[in-house]
Amino acid sequence: MDSLQFTAESSSNGVIERDFIMDRVPGVLWSPASGADLAPLVLMGHGGGNHKKHPAMSGRAQRLVTGCGFHVAVLDAPGHGDRPRTEHDEAEIAELFRARAAGEPEGPIVVRYNDYLAALAVPEYRALLDALQALPEIGADGPVGYWGINMGTAIGVPFVATEPRITAAVFGQHWPDVLAEKAQRITIPIEFDLQWDDEHISREEGLALFDAFASKEKSLHVNSGRHKELPRFEADSAVRFFARHLGEAVTASA
Amino acid sequence: MDSLQFTAESSSNGVIERDFIMDRVPGVLWSPASGADLAPLVLMGHGGGNHKKHPAMSGRAQRLVTGCGFHVAVLDAPGHGDRPRTEHDEAEIAELFRARAAGEPEGPIVVRYNDYLAALAVPEYRALLDALQALPEIGADGPVGYWGINMGTAIGVPFVATEPRITAAVFGQHWPDVLAEKAQRITIPIEFDLQWDDEHISREEGLALFDAFASKEKSLHVNSGRHKELPRFEADSAVRFFARHLGEAVTASA
Repeated sequence: MDSLQFTAESSSNGVIERDFIMDRVPGVLWSPASGADLAPLVLMGHGGGNHKKHPAMSGRAQRLVTGCGFHVAVLDAPGHGDRPRTEHDEAEIAELFRARAAGEPEGPIVVRYNDYLAALAVPEYRALLDALQALPEIGADGPVGYWGINMGTAIGVPFVATEPRITAAVFGQHWPDVLAEKAQRITIPIEFDLQWDDEHISREEGLALFDAFASKEKSLHVNSGRHKELPRFEADSAVRFFARHLGEAVTASA
Repeated sequence: MDSLQFTAESSSNGVIERDFIMDRVPGVLWSPASGADLAPLVLMGHGGGNHKKHPAMSGRAQRLVTGCGFHVAVLDAPGHGDRPRTEHDEAEIAELFRARAAGEPEGPIVVRYNDYLAALAVPEYRALLDALQALPEIGADGPVGYWGINMGTAIGVPFVATEPRITAAVFGQHWPDVLAEKAQRITIPIEFDLQWDDEHISREEGLALFDAFASKEKSLHVNSGRHKELPRFEADSAVRFFARHLGEAVTASA
């Protein structure tokens, strides 16, 4: 089991932010400054082209930590953030930019590249969960959620499908290719976001992935707007979703 | 313009409940016990077979009044609650029960009967809004929302399509027949609920009605479960929707 090496710590607005390295993978752990022993944990996956401390990540973490008292952790995905890009990464990114400039569909390239990245990232997230549960302030018995949209869904669906410690998840905005078959093995409560006017992912594709989840409890939130226009209030909704599912578990076990 | 005749008043849990009669139509107005001059107003429409004080109505009112400080009003729909049933009502209800017992689709009967009821109810809701805006604690300039699911959507869509005083609305769970053409004239922000496993309204029908709204800002909330299993947390979501859209107007005009 890999352990975390904490490399930096800061604190602001009630949140302690600790950077770490886990076997060469950089990550960040946000925790309540007030201390939260054995509080629930939410693992997050960032979007394609972004990184572990992108404002979408730190904004969600602020809400989960100060609003719910949860711990929140994110890894840089392979080829992202502070991690090196391989020749394969460079080639795929160049191909994506070429397709975009030519006005060709991005989907086939993103689906293929995200699948490649997920195969690398899933074992990293599993090792991260092992290492975080070894920390005394998190522990091995608390509820754990996963939250990732876009590439965070491409990594999260195969991760959650094979990781029974995750008990609630928020996904969204991805093509069903590759992922739908894995989503059929997921039975935990999910909330799923999609954009009704997404210029990359058709309504049929978005709905097909939502439909694939075997979860008895699942909610779909569709909003008007293009791919990058997911409304900020959906982050608040996801936080309430985790409070409902992970928070209740805390109460029940207290 | 019809005026309201208040017939009873009670107070509990921070909410004043006033029954009224408006030109033979019975209704109820819920308001903050603490007083809320010129607070926003939400008109609601109840579901088929229910009435103005059904727990779904009083529960939503409690949330809107104590959570947001809003006024909330509902009318008994024609043939519902304390209103008499006509021979036509009795015949349509008998036909619905017959179809249900025979395992035939209810949609065609409900669509037709709701359309008939809406033609009667829309002018009543318009008169209600006139009368409520004449009350000093509501006034003519405040923001007004509409919230109705099922039959409340059958009445609400034609009402909102022709009533410019309504600036935000929550709808859901209805067939697109009759309503889609009217929804195309609605441009205000909406939130729309549908059930993914509705035994009466197909996914395609539910999505078609959502899709018909011309609103630039629209959100669809789909949940797993059958027609009557709309999760209670969707009521909380609708309350936040109204707080966002009607509450901001209050702040902006203050």
